[in-house]
Amino acid sequence: MRKIRKEKKEIKKTFNRVAIIGLGVMGASLGMALKKGKIAKNVVGFARRLETRKKALACKIVDIACDRIESAVHGADFIVFCAPVSVIPGMIKSVAGGLLAPGAVLTDVGSVKNKIVVEAEKILYGCKSEFIGSHPIAGSEQHGLEAARADLYRGAVVALTPTPCISGRALQIAREFWRALGAEVVVVGPEEHDRIIARTSHLPHIIAALLAGCVGRDHSAEYGKFCGGGFRDTTRIAEGDPELWHDILENNTLYLKKELEAYQKELKKILGGLKKDKSKIIKKYLKLGVEGRHSLLSNQNTGSASRFFSNG
Amino acid sequence: MRKIRKEKKEIKKTFNRVAIIGLGVMGASLGMALKKGKIAKNVVGFARRLETRKKALACKIVDIACDRIESAVHGADFIVFCAPVSVIPGMIKSVAGGLLAPGAVLTDVGSVKNKIVVEAEKILYGCKSEFIGSHPIAGSEQHGLEAARADLYRGAVVALTPTPCISGRALQIAREFWRALGAEVVVVGPEEHDRIIARTSHLPHIIAALLAGCVGRDHSAEYGKFCGGGFRDTTRIAEGDPELWHDILENNTLYLKKELEAYQKELKKILGGLKKDKSKIIKKYLKLGVEGRHSLLSNQNTGSASRFFSNG
Repeated sequence: MRKIRKEKKEIKKTFNRVAIIGLGVMGASLGMALKKGKIAKNVVGFARRLETRKKALACKIVDIACDRIESAVHGADFIVFCAPVSVIPGMIKSVAGGLLAPGAVLTDVGSVKNKIVVEAEKILYGCKSEFIGSHPIAGSEQHGLEAARADLYRGAVVALTPTPCISGRALQIAREFWRALGAEVVVVGPEEHDRIIARTSHLPHIIAALLAGCVGRDHSAEYGKFCGGGFRDTTRIAEGDPELWHDILENNTLYLKKELEAYQKELKKILGGLKKDKSKIIKKYLKLGVEGRHSLLSNQNTGSASRFFSNG
Repeated sequence: MRKIRKEKKEIKKTFNRVAIIGLGVMGASLGMALKKGKIAKNVVGFARRLETRKKALACKIVDIACDRIESAVHGADFIVFCAPVSVIPGMIKSVAGGLLAPGAVLTDVGSVKNKIVVEAEKILYGCKSEFIGSHPIAGSEQHGLEAARADLYRGAVVALTPTPCISGRALQIAREFWRALGAEVVVVGPEEHDRIIARTSHLPHIIAALLAGCVGRDHSAEYGKFCGGGFRDTTRIAEGDPELWHDILENNTLYLKKELEAYQKELKKILGGLKKDKSKIIKKYLKLGVEGRHSLLSNQNTGSASRFFSNG
């Protein structure tokens, strides 16, 4: 008990200087929320493009806008990388050599965790700063600073993916950060995260893209009139930035492939069933769909312990 | 030109007595819209359950609520069957023998057209009433009278599926009916309708159910926290009434099977590609998804002629 109390004492409810590296929809929403909630004394943002920096300042998304990552992280106690998964390790490398404030906690918002975490820990080995992976289960099919919303993280689940190397202090700081934004934190290992998220997010994404491509494969003009709300919803996420999603999926193909194979097996069963007893097979899969959705979504707001992760 | 003008003269902008057979979400929304828009002098509804009839009267969805179809259709100039696809032919049969007002136009709101149209024309052969299939591309994953909305049909596309047996007068009446509700009418043959709708609606429905079932196949409590807006949207239609959708899909398995086979072929290509050049295959299908969705949805509001159907 004493240890936990001690940890809690160390936590600052207000962060001194938070650096956001990348001001797309995720980063800009984070800046908005931090400023609105007065969670950080200073919010510093990095964006490569001058126009983005100008807009971020004009819209009061950040207090300071930097054109170099090195300047943005200077003196920051909390740093969030809001950039594509495969870009983040290079970014961490660029600031790892003495530019980070001692005790600074680094995190990100990427949808794949194991690769980033492994590389970040290698880069920061021996440093006085720690990287702990974050994945907010929140987002938008729109992209860019213009799509930012101050409430993007409110009520969202944020997966925190510490390894055994991560200190309790760093975990607690990251947990407090997301909680201050109104998110619910769950703690899970990076590899386990990638396995789960392949099923709940990466599979639906590729399926939505495949479906949109299949329905729109020819004579699109004719078929368009017959596309209703069902098609629109089912394929909405297919509008997500293909570059960004390519980067995500490419970094989790091992688990994505496993999920696609399981999915393909079920699809085969449906097609086989349509040839034999169509009524039975259709009924079966419609029922499984309703049951699957209910069991997943009705359990979203429970805090039950599980063998996969603990609620943070 | 003279013929068309003559046809137009015959059209009543206000219907005298519209009968709605079935007061679920589709039928009740229709009643609401007819009464709100003062499109019919009298709206008569049929519902088997006393509670539904009471609610329909209390919520001013209908003027008269009947417990027998025979009473509901009495004296009606326009009759809309808002019941499951496979139930409709039996309903038409029950009123075909002299109960219908001469010149009455019958239609429905079913998602499959060929079977209904063929059976209805057989039943009504020699009668002074005609059946013309309608399919409003509108709906809700919710069901029952409680989910009804007066604006359900506003802005929706309604496919009208006349056969060569249908008179210009009946087609025009049906067209005016849906237009009065604010819908856009497209005219297409029943068989062609079923072929197109298998791709744009029935395929997405079974895919959404399959996906929800796959993601929720085990350890659902653990996976639920990792289901975000993407999963929720992609599988929303899987919440649709399984009984109703079973009825729809079972009546269009020929085309649904063709669509599922085409879809399976593409899925196989993705899985094959993940083993060879994962980056290339992911990029390709994400791009096809965006392009497919854009081409379908950007063409929804154009009135261009096509080889499949004409704008009504």
